[in-house]
Amino acid sequence: MTVSASSPVGIFDSGIGGLTVVKAIQSLLPSERIIYFGDTARVPYGSKSQVTIRKYAQDDTAILMKYQPKMIIVACNTVSALALDVVKQVGNGVPVLGVLEAGAALAVQHSRNNRIGVIGTRATIASNAYSLAIGLIEPAVEVFSSPCPLFVPLAEEGYIDHPASRMIAREYLEGLLEQGVDTLVLGCTHYPILRNLIEETVGPDIAIIDSAEAIALKAKEVLVENNLLNDSASSVFPHLLVSDLPQKFKALCELFLGRDIPDVELVDV
Amino acid sequence: MTVSASSPVGIFDSGIGGLTVVKAIQSLLPSERIIYFGDTARVPYGSKSQVTIRKYAQDDTAILMKYQPKMIIVACNTVSALALDVVKQVGNGVPVLGVLEAGAALAVQHSRNNRIGVIGTRATIASNAYSLAIGLIEPAVEVFSSPCPLFVPLAEEGYIDHPASRMIAREYLEGLLEQGVDTLVLGCTHYPILRNLIEETVGPDIAIIDSAEAIALKAKEVLVENNLLNDSASSVFPHLLVSDLPQKFKALCELFLGRDIPDVELVDV
Repeated sequence: MTVSASSPVGIFDSGIGGLTVVKAIQSLLPSERIIYFGDTARVPYGSKSQVTIRKYAQDDTAILMKYQPKMIIVACNTVSALALDVVKQVGNGVPVLGVLEAGAALAVQHSRNNRIGVIGTRATIASNAYSLAIGLIEPAVEVFSSPCPLFVPLAEEGYIDHPASRMIAREYLEGLLEQGVDTLVLGCTHYPILRNLIEETVGPDIAIIDSAEAIALKAKEVLVENNLLNDSASSVFPHLLVSDLPQKFKALCELFLGRDIPDVELVDV
Repeated sequence: MTVSASSPVGIFDSGIGGLTVVKAIQSLLPSERIIYFGDTARVPYGSKSQVTIRKYAQDDTAILMKYQPKMIIVACNTVSALALDVVKQVGNGVPVLGVLEAGAALAVQHSRNNRIGVIGTRATIASNAYSLAIGLIEPAVEVFSSPCPLFVPLAEEGYIDHPASRMIAREYLEGLLEQGVDTLVLGCTHYPILRNLIEETVGPDIAIIDSAEAIALKAKEVLVENNLLNDSASSVFPHLLVSDLPQKFKALCELFLGRDIPDVELVDV
């Protein structure tokens, strides 16, 4: 398979959350063609087992590979934590970036006191993958983590500025605050939707790391290194694929991308 | 295929919620052998499309049919609303009962003022299936409904007596209270977990209809009619199958069944 600078960047996620990555990539690299797959028929992944998550990751990568991408970005933290090797195997030599590594690296850069907090799905937190990734970069850092399983449904239901969400956020985050972290990684692509609420809860002294922004920076770096940056002047709409409910996806797109989008295509998994 | 009184009763749901039906059947019909399948790899169904729900219903029924059941109970309101015909087709003559019809019938019996409220997933409420089922039984009844999408994650996370759940419940239910309903159908098998909270929110004057109890009564009636009631004196543990996370399922069983259970078997979908 030959790829060139005009080949698309493939991105996948368990559902709609990865659109925060699409938005960050488009903002940093507006000329890149993006092909996005959201597995809305089997969402969520974060509450499921490693075996199931690995099987789904294989399917998702195979769908993107049909479009001969020059790079695959795993926008799903859960897949990044538990199945990045599966994606690389199916990707067959195409560079694969996971949000998790990008977020971990940016968090280490930001922390002054070497105490980093990580929030994510149960599967991501239980995998301990952020601790491991951060420890590889800077062994002196202590990582404190907390699963926030209700943040995904609250974000998808649009409870982004609701007293019930505020109450739940306080409970999820108070343990991390007690540990004196100075940096907090949003280890799930849904969580940027709740960013204001999370910022209010943790206060102004804690730096929030949005792994969507982190991975956009990393993607640019890798494309430049491989001489694959698309430097045409035109910007294009992302090509969006989902495994279920394209209409609902289209409706939610505005919340995530901050603008309307053209058609969403339905694919079978 | 020949079935007899000693054949099992097959029950399926999108996940763990249908265990409320298992509990109700066991309590009313303790001698019946139960085979239960929970599609925990693809849960939830209620936020997905009709096409996807119908495909999943077909798979779920096929799994139960391997055990030659004498009856199939669709514990999932979403499947009852959108795919009962698919279950009947794959069931190939085996009597099929859906929770929805049973709940609708019991609600009509209870209502004095002919104003019935129904709560359920987005898919169930959007299908209008409860209104249709109630209208067939008693055209004079007015049905008022409200989707409560956060109740499933709140129940699964054990937020059964939490101020955030209370706040969300008030918002979901206040429209139905304003309509003066005297009966409220819990149109999702997860909701009985939140029954106390819902009862507190709506007050003592509204009768709560738990479709799990309703379908147990209906199942007994149909088994007696067909001369298939198991009248042996022994009681047996239900045989539990899931498509993912058998350990988590086992742990949640206590919450749903009120007791510990033996092994849970993993099947592929």
